[in-house]
Amino acid sequence: MTKFTLHPDLARDTVFVAELDVCRVLLMNNAAFPWLILVPQVEGAYELFDLDDEEYDMVMQEVRAVAEELSALTGADKMNIAALGNVTPQLHIHVIARFAGDAAWPKPVWGNGGEPYDKDELAEMLRRMQSMFPA
Amino acid sequence: MTKFTLHPDLARDTVFVAELDVCRVLLMNNAAFPWLILVPQVEGAYELFDLDDEEYDMVMQEVRAVAEELSALTGADKMNIAALGNVTPQLHIHVIARFAGDAAWPKPVWGNGGEPYDKDELAEMLRRMQSMFPA
Repeated sequence: MTKFTLHPDLARDTVFVAELDVCRVLLMNNAAFPWLILVPQVEGAYELFDLDDEEYDMVMQEVRAVAEELSALTGADKMNIAALGNVTPQLHIHVIARFAGDAAWPKPVWGNGGEPYDKDELAEMLRRMQSMFPA
Repeated sequence: MTKFTLHPDLARDTVFVAELDVCRVLLMNNAAFPWLILVPQVEGAYELFDLDDEEYDMVMQEVRAVAEELSALTGADKMNIAALGNVTPQLHIHVIARFAGDAAWPKPVWGNGGEPYDKDELAEMLRRMQSMFPA
């Protein structure tokens, strides 16, 4: 994991939550949705198939574990999991807890609402998210 | 793989392309985007983490292979891979070839344009898609 640098778009829009074996876990600063982003710390990766076999397996295991835990933590009606990257050219996987009646439901979240957390909300949400990743 | 039944939403919106070890591969009937949908033929699965370990590994391998082949076949600028399912309660994974300047770019495709193929376009696209899955 040498010299991995987080893309400035992701640095701007998220807050650090935890570091797993391969992925960095970030909280999207959007108070409308419990929304994590997993960034495989593999320099130069853009597509999922840019990962080698072992990296891919590990990333997919981390995605599954985080999705299942975030679902349980939030009681989501549905998890949305996506690698899009049309705007930000660094591989990152969205893991979003969706609720019937949330700001975008049933549409996808991208471009469909939400505002940044205020500082107290952010602190509380970070505490909840970090509880999924005991040190 | 006993008694798997495709959800009527997916049956309505897609055309059959191929059957892999776990997933059924469908072509979304939207001429704006080369858009495949992989449906794990596991009755009752809704979330990715509803799959058992072996099913999950196999599905993720199939997703990777299809994404890489569709990217190569189309020369896409970016692949979009997503399991959303807010509307259709059967696990399915979108694998979409995106191009700078396509009907939705850089937004996600869902709700952002496209029309069904006409019959000649559909036949041609099916031929191209089926070429990825030699019998």
